[in-house]
Parts: sequence; structure tokens; C-alpha cells
Amino acid sequence: MREFIPPAARFVDLPAAFAMRRGGTLTGARIAYETVGRLSPERDNAVLILTGLSPDAHAASHPADTGPGWWEAMVGPGKPVDTDRWYVICLNSLGSCKGSTGPASVDPGTGRPYGPGFPELSMEDIADAAAHTVRALGVDRLACVIGTSMGGMSALSLLARHPGLARGHINICGAARALPFSIAIRSLQREAIRCDPQWNQGRYDEGNYPQRGMFTARKLGMLTYRSAREWDIRFGRARIAPEEREEQEDRADRAGRAGRAGRADLEPFGREFQVEEYLERHARRFAHRFDPNSYLCLSRCMDRFDLGESCGTTTDEALSRVPLERALVIGVETDILFPLHQQQQIADGLCAGGTAVEFVAMDSPEGHDAFLIDTVRFGAPVAKFLTLL
Amino acid sequence: MREFIPPAARFVDLPAAFAMRRGGTLTGARIAYETVGRLSPERDNAVLILTGLSPDAHAASHPADTGPGWWEAMVGPGKPVDTDRWYVICLNSLGSCKGSTGPASVDPGTGRPYGPGFPELSMEDIADAAAHTVRALGVDRLACVIGTSMGGMSALSLLARHPGLARGHINICGAARALPFSIAIRSLQREAIRCDPQWNQGRYDEGNYPQRGMFTARKLGMLTYRSAREWDIRFGRARIAPEEREEQEDRADRAGRAGRAGRADLEPFGREFQVEEYLERHARRFAHRFDPNSYLCLSRCMDRFDLGESCGTTTDEALSRVPLERALVIGVETDILFPLHQQQQIADGLCAGGTAVEFVAMDSPEGHDAFLIDTVRFGAPVAKFLTLL
Repeated sequence: MREFIPPAARFVDLPAAFAMRRGGTLTGARIAYETVGRLSPERDNAVLILTGLSPDAHAASHPADTGPGWWEAMVGPGKPVDTDRWYVICLNSLGSCKGSTGPASVDPGTGRPYGPGFPELSMEDIADAAAHTVRALGVDRLACVIGTSMGGMSALSLLARHPGLARGHINICGAARALPFSIAIRSLQREAIRCDPQWNQGRYDEGNYPQRGMFTARKLGMLTYRSAREWDIRFGRARIAPEEREEQEDRADRAGRAGRAGRADLEPFGREFQVEEYLERHARRFAHRFDPNSYLCLSRCMDRFDLGESCGTTTDEALSRVPLERALVIGVETDILFPLHQQQQIADGLCAGGTAVEFVAMDSPEGHDAFLIDTVRFGAPVAKFLTLL
Repeated sequence: MREFIPPAARFVDLPAAFAMRRGGTLTGARIAYETVGRLSPERDNAVLILTGLSPDAHAASHPADTGPGWWEAMVGPGKPVDTDRWYVICLNSLGSCKGSTGPASVDPGTGRPYGPGFPELSMEDIADAAAHTVRALGVDRLACVIGTSMGGMSALSLLARHPGLARGHINICGAARALPFSIAIRSLQREAIRCDPQWNQGRYDEGNYPQRGMFTARKLGMLTYRSAREWDIRFGRARIAPEEREEQEDRADRAGRAGRAGRADLEPFGREFQVEEYLERHARRFAHRFDPNSYLCLSRCMDRFDLGESCGTTTDEALSRVPLERALVIGVETDILFPLHQQQQIADGLCAGGTAVEFVAMDSPEGHDAFLIDTVRFGAPVAKFLTLL
């Protein structure tokens, strides 16, 4: 089990014994983070970014790591999240495998990775660990919490559990609770991993790795991250050129990551259309760069999230209780994983509680992933919101 | 490998050597069919029903088989497809496993099931076999061809390849070509079956059966047959009651079909939400009632279908060349597998060729499967269309 820690990641230790909401305690746990920009002497210009399931803390390039971050177009000097003004903190979620403590981390109690023994993770744990990290960095009040995708869930949890920690909030393609279509998708992704014999009840290693399960999980994810409309335009019914296919196979084999399971196109009923090759390419790229147990933990934790259940009330009521000055909520019309009505619910709920809310429904064809791609369109409202904050 | 033949199925032999479009020949192949109602002396009241991927020829009850058919609410005396007036022929597609020749059938050349040796199937083969069957039943001109889902594809192929064989057409949740989102879904379904070690390159038997792959394939199918909206209403975030879960496991175990793979809920990250149980129930019901090789054949054959490619022109142009008097095209706004714009394309294309076309966009929440469930809403336009035919 490997962790995938970006080179410039720094760390904040969680309290020596960090109690998990669903039981169990983490000892010596830590959160990986990066910062871009400078904290003002008044400590009033901090913006926290909470990520989706897979990104690390490297949202954007900075002197210590000049490689492009996962949200490079959005974060930096003069960009929508302008680091000439804002001190941006991005952190890797608790339970992930990119520097923060998760199933791939060593359990100090045993000296071996937690693996399947990692305590059950909840969105509230991710939120509490994030709040602790922010305070440990000397910030008592954030100007804004930005949450994208799963980060939109953990951001709402943080805001509800740590009233006053932030005055502004940008929720992008997030949700205040998981609904059955996304639960079903994630359930199938987990099943693909768990039913891979190489998963071995969570006791795999690089030599015996549930690659096939991870492939399927990632392909299923890709189905829901984009939209049918985008694929109609992008792939249509185009076939794979035979030479292109062979070249990709060769490259993958050289990378030592294909094995027999990767050569599905050579068998009957193998890949024929470009959309199939596209899914395969993404699956190969992802499968060995994310810890399967971590994937399972974060996935289930999303299913279980309901801000209402968490606060002992309805989702709408819980949203109305979130104390905020201003919020920007953005959704995408073609998002099938976190559909637009879920962002509408967040906007309406926050508004009912007295927050000044702006709601933007984007017409991007890129579905749930639009915030990573259609950054021109997303940049405008984010920049405007932060300028006025 | 088993076939699942409804008790009252009858059979039409295909020509002794039936040439398949993509190569290979079937010897001694047959098509299973059932009829309801009586053929008029003028032989002008025949209505052909072409089915989706999984149904058999038993669309509705009749004296020889009084059990309910898969479209019982729609077909029968006084029903929208009124068998007091119409002579209804429903047939099982070539390549299926419900009486018509397919991979589970015995290859007369070897005395063993075709299995993975079945020739590559195309929609045109299904259409030609259907046309042959109709003529063998003494019908030279159908009053109407009704095609649902995949049947909407094979119906268009039949109409294009056998001009004059029908004067009317009802296309329900069909498509004139496969698009990348549905190709991707089917690709993942096939991958799940092919990567199940028990599939064994298509050489499985009941004792070594790719149950896990069939489970995943069916669950993925269910994700696309209904809609997120329906599931929000139906399941919301309801959990599985523990006693309900155990009862279902017990029942499944008694049926001897569960095995370890079925007991996923007992492991970590197992089933917790009702939507997960729902998928599991459907998967269990389906997995051993459809031949995996047949599933693979029909699935790939759908991907490859494009009426335009088949006719050597664009899809729109091919549609405009289909000779018909009248057509009714119905789609569902919540259908993500065969989305509404595909039925709009069929309607526009047929209309451009001079056919009198009625297009209906249904607001049913049941997605692609609405025609099987929301029969009150579907019944009205179908009954009206057939009355005026």
C-alpha cells in the first residue's frame, strides 16, 4: 500500500488521539496541506479549498512546487482565486492516500499500514480534521471555504460543526446529502474493488493488487463525471485506429502496469470504439495512483453524508442553520452525479437562514467535472464573488 | 449453457444456411415466436413486436400460455394493442437465449453449444431473421412493426432492409444508432462478464458460471433503465432493515444461487441502503436467467448499430429513405440510455421522407423502462395510433 504525497506537501498533526465519529481513534494522525500566497498580518485573508475524492493538496503551482496543480487555471496570482490577495490553503482529506492519514498510512499501534483496519470514516471526521488544520495554521476565521464535489460536502459539514470559522463559502458541484443514484454508482464501484480476488479483504500489495477492480471503479466514475452530450460531440461513433490501440498497449506494457487484465481488446468483445479506449486510458492512469482501501473509505463516507442526519434535523433545516455572511453556489446542468437540484437545495437552504446567496446554473457540457475543465466559465463568478467578499 | 424457452413458444426455421452479415453461417437456425389474436383472411392485420435485449416472445397471455407476458398491460383483447383486431406476432431475437438460435444453442456442426464460437451478430441479422419469420407465417405486409428499446433498432433495420414489409411503425425508446454513453455502459457490462474468471473465454457451465460478472452487468443496466428522479422518490436515503436483509439472504441461499459472491453485505463496505438491496435483488433474479455469451453478443450488436452505416449514408438520410405510411415515435424525458433526442431524430428522419409521424415525449419518471411500467400513459397514444391505422 502506497501513499502518493506531492513533493511540497507540509503537515499538521491532529490531536494525539483523534476520535472518529463512528467509533475508533486515530493516534498520531496528520493532514497534508499546501499554501499559496501570504497570510496577512490581520490573518483575515485565508481561503480554504476542500477537494473532491481524488485530488491532493497541490491545487496550484507555487515556488516550492512549480508543477501545475489540479486547479491551476483557477488559483494563482491574478487568477479567479487571486493569491496576490488571498492566502490559499488546500488540504488532502483525512482518509485519503495523498499525505493525510488514511488506510495506506502506518498504524503506529502495529507498525503496519491500517489497511482494512482503518476506522470507519465519516464526512464529519474530514471536516473536523480540516478545521483543526486551519486553526493550527493560525487562522481563526476564514474569509472563505471553497468546496468542490465531495469537498462541497465536507465544507458544509465544517461550516455546520464549526460556526464562525468562515464568513464566506463557495460550493461547486456539491451536495448537502447523498441521493440513491450516486449511492448506487458508488456501491457498484466498491463492489468491483471488493469482488476483485486481489483485493483480498483489503490485504493487497503492489504485487497482488486489485487492478481490475480499480479499472472498473474508475471507468464507472468517468461515466458520471462527464456527460453524454460531451461524448456525443467528442467521440460520436468513432472507432479506434488499430495502430493507435497497439501503441497504447505497448506504452502501457512498458510502464509495467497492464498485465493480462489490461489487454481486454485482444479478446472477443474487446474495445472497438474511441469512447472505450478513453475509459481504458483513464482507468490505467488512475488504478495504481490511488489506494483501493482509501477509495472504499471515502466512497462510503460520501454515501452516508446527510447534513440533516448529522445535525439531527432535516437537510433543509440544517442548511438554514449554517452561519455565513455570503455564499456562491454553482451547479452544472449536465451533472448526473451531483445533479443541479442538489446545488439548488444548498442555495435555498443557506438563503433561508439569512445568508446572501448567489446561485449559478452552468450550461457546460462537461458534467460534474466542468469545474476542472470549463474554468473560463467558472472563473467569472468565483472571481466576482471573491472580489466583493 | 441453458436456454430459457417460454412454454408456448413455436418456431420458424431460418433458411438451411443463414449467412450472417459480419461473416459465418448458421445451419439449422430457428426463431421462437408466439402469436396472440387471429390472422384475418386478408392477412392484413398482423402486428410484429420486436423486443429489447432480454424479453422473450411471450409478450402477453393467450390460451396456450395464460401466464402474464412482459407487456401484458399493453397487448390483449381490448388493450392498446387490441388482439380482437390485430394478429400480434412477438418474436425472440436471433442471438438471444429464449428459444431463438444463439450462443447457448447446439451447433449442429459440433453437437455442442456454440458458446463463444457463435458468429458475430449484427442488428441486420436480427432484422433479416425477423422478416423471414413474418413471411413464413404467411404475412407479406405487416400493418405495423412495434419496436421497444433494442427492438426499436431492429425494427428500423427491418424496415430499411425489407421495404414494403410494413406500412406502420411504432418506435418506443429506440434509436437509429448507438451513441457513446450507451456504448460505454455496455462496454463496462461486457467487461464485468469477460473479466469474471468463471466466464473462462465463454466456456462456462452452470457449475462454473460468471455469476459475479452477470450481477455487475445487470446492476449497471438497472442504473440506466430507471432514473435518478424515480429513485429519489422511491428510496431516498432509506436504509436496509437488518431483518429484511437476512431474510433475503436466506431465501437466496435456499434457491442455491447466492454463494459467497452474493453475501457482499456481510463484508466491510457491504450493502446498507435500500437502493443497494434493490440492485442486488434484480441482479440475483437475472443472473441465471440469461446466457452470458448471448448477453455479450446482443450487447455488442447494439453498439455497432447505425442505420446510416448500414445503408452507406448518414443516419438522417437513411431514416428518410425508410418507406412507411405512418409512424408513432415515443421517448421518455428521463431516459439516459436511449435519450429523447434519439427518438426526435427518428421522428424527424422518417418525417423528412414523407411518413406521417407523430412524436410523443413522455414525462414519466421511470426512465428507459417507462414503457414497461407507465403503461397507462403509453397505452393512450399506442391505442390511438393503431385505431387510426
